[in-house]
Amino acid sequence: MGRPPRHSPDELLALVAKEFLTRGYDATSMADLARATGMTKSAIYSHVTGKQELLRLAVSRAMDALFAVLAEPTARQGAAVERLEHVVRRSAEVLVDQLPYVTLLLRVRGNTPVEREALTRRRDFDDRLSALVRSAIDEGTVRDDLDPRLVTRLLFGMVNSVAEWYRPQRALSADKIADAVVALAFSGLRRP
Amino acid sequence: MGRPPRHSPDELLALVAKEFLTRGYDATSMADLARATGMTKSAIYSHVTGKQELLRLAVSRAMDALFAVLAEPTARQGAAVERLEHVVRRSAEVLVDQLPYVTLLLRVRGNTPVEREALTRRRDFDDRLSALVRSAIDEGTVRDDLDPRLVTRLLFGMVNSVAEWYRPQRALSADKIADAVVALAFSGLRRP
Repeated sequence: MGRPPRHSPDELLALVAKEFLTRGYDATSMADLARATGMTKSAIYSHVTGKQELLRLAVSRAMDALFAVLAEPTARQGAAVERLEHVVRRSAEVLVDQLPYVTLLLRVRGNTPVEREALTRRRDFDDRLSALVRSAIDEGTVRDDLDPRLVTRLLFGMVNSVAEWYRPQRALSADKIADAVVALAFSGLRRP
Repeated sequence: MGRPPRHSPDELLALVAKEFLTRGYDATSMADLARATGMTKSAIYSHVTGKQELLRLAVSRAMDALFAVLAEPTARQGAAVERLEHVVRRSAEVLVDQLPYVTLLLRVRGNTPVEREALTRRRDFDDRLSALVRSAIDEGTVRDDLDPRLVTRLLFGMVNSVAEWYRPQRALSADKIADAVVALAFSGLRRP
């Protein structure tokens, strides 16, 4: 019999997230997670209280990275339109960097307390973004004919859609995707 | 015993699509569909050969509506940038008008022949859109610093994201959403 693998907490979480994404969170059992990680169920239970905690760790990784963006100096100082642009660019980068965790977050539907907590944090993030759009409108740097909440939804709809097709092994870098998102959202496709 | 309901083909398909969306296509049985429509299984089988055909009818409704947009005069004549703008606007309207069918289409993952056929048609649609972006770049009316395929993905990522949150009972009209999508995508948020 081989020695059971010793995963770092990061490696364990990556394997768990992959399993949740493949099977769907509801359909994944602790036995599935044991198989996916090569660990015994009791070894997993020595790290965490169960499936719910693993989901909380995984979606928190995505939400923490997004909230960390809001705390960056460029997101806090300067003209609102520049802060907004920074947050949109960095959110696209976070999505690519933390792809499995953000994808899990985007699939959360609110069936469990952990999922409802994640949805609350997402709403909080959206509220901050809408407030930033409103500030930029007030400062006269963003067009005033669109509803700030609708703008926030469309902006993040565009950013989040990258999770539908992005595959890390392909040549497209996080940078290049973030550039395209920002160019499209802030300057538009049409040549002046 | 009450008389079994007589649904028009449209009503039947709407009830079926709703059930597929709630349960997921794979998890929906003919017994579930019978319960959802108030029909007997054999009455359903008198209309269609089974679950696969119902899925084909539902996703075809979305794809047919999208391809019908490409056939509209404004999508076929004039400057490429105007044709592109028309297709983006009308696609947003189709999404809102045919919400359950487009949402089903967006969830298709290619597990069955019907799903693979739908994915092929989606790719065909995307190819036509990318070609339109390329024409607009060639005509000098759309910026040339972004990859046409990436632009197409981001544009439709934004349009399709509306399916995540749009609820028909809310006040926001298809028109208003389409206006915002077009404004954001073609002119950008930033004031010149």
